[in-house]
Amino acid sequence: MPIISDEELQRRRQEILDGARRCFAEHGYEGATVRLLEEATGKSRGAIFHHYGDKESLFLEIARDDAQRQADVVAEGGLVEVMRDMVSHPERYDWLATRLEITRKLRSDQDFRSRWQEHQKVLDEAVRKRLLQNKDAHRMRTDVPIEVLHTYLETVMDGFITRLASGGSTENLEMVLDFVENSVREPLKGS
Amino acid sequence: MPIISDEELQRRRQEILDGARRCFAEHGYEGATVRLLEEATGKSRGAIFHHYGDKESLFLEIARDDAQRQADVVAEGGLVEVMRDMVSHPERYDWLATRLEITRKLRSDQDFRSRWQEHQKVLDEAVRKRLLQNKDAHRMRTDVPIEVLHTYLETVMDGFITRLASGGSTENLEMVLDFVENSVREPLKGS
Repeated sequence: MPIISDEELQRRRQEILDGARRCFAEHGYEGATVRLLEEATGKSRGAIFHHYGDKESLFLEIARDDAQRQADVVAEGGLVEVMRDMVSHPERYDWLATRLEITRKLRSDQDFRSRWQEHQKVLDEAVRKRLLQNKDAHRMRTDVPIEVLHTYLETVMDGFITRLASGGSTENLEMVLDFVENSVREPLKGS
Repeated sequence: MPIISDEELQRRRQEILDGARRCFAEHGYEGATVRLLEEATGKSRGAIFHHYGDKESLFLEIARDDAQRQADVVAEGGLVEVMRDMVSHPERYDWLATRLEITRKLRSDQDFRSRWQEHQKVLDEAVRKRLLQNKDAHRMRTDVPIEVLHTYLETVMDGFITRLASGGSTENLEMVLDFVENSVREPLKGS
């Protein structure tokens, strides 16, 4: 058996993730059959599932990748910055539609739901940390509990995903983001 | 050919809509086969499509029904009231998931998209009218264009649909709605 460097292993795993992401984006979660995943990744089903167990795990791994990337943006600029990034990167919308398609599965499959939440944790924690930092720096309004602001921002982001994934007009969306950003800020006093 | 009263005709059409709604909610748009639609409505495919043309038209008719009902709530209490209604009626979430499943179709099928928008018009117009009324009555902030507030509220509602349809926690959602409602109101001066 040939010895494979860590780097080479990492490269192969990334190739699978990139191909599978395109495949899910194009065909949806249910529509992405094993055959289509083989085609999109250029790897055999044996190789794919050697690295990622099964289709569900592969999907969740891509979602975790997303969550990690978003968490990095949150740490730098907050959740609104993630939404700005979405508005300016239309090529990611196809993948966003896939996130909507799994809604039913999230609702009906408790095990899948737990795994999904586990994979999203890195993003949740980044948002929470950022909100607390902003609060300490007096950049956040204090008349509303931080958990409520957290849920509010997540809900707005879910709305953005729907809007972008359905190919709706992006008109006004930049201004909506400015509005959302201002709404969680410390209100100006005495103006 | 027996003569059918308008009332009887209306009753039959409503039975089909009610059954079909349950069927789409349970099986999703794609999953709701003609056979399942027959079972759920207790009508033959001939009868169903006599009244509603085809599956797409049937689906859009249910969506229009929803939009009309929501438009009525908007006229009374605004779009936030529609969201409050969603939070307090969990039994409607299954149907909401179906709305997410058609996102890909909205994006990829231009004709479906146009028809969908046509069916949603009654709601759009109700929201716009309500916002203008609130503006005239000085119940709305005036520093943000009304179109931006409209898009903002629609986006938040899309986020609510995702959240509720995926069976997420409804904790904080009432407070989020209070927050959203306040954010579009006239800001208090000199406080």
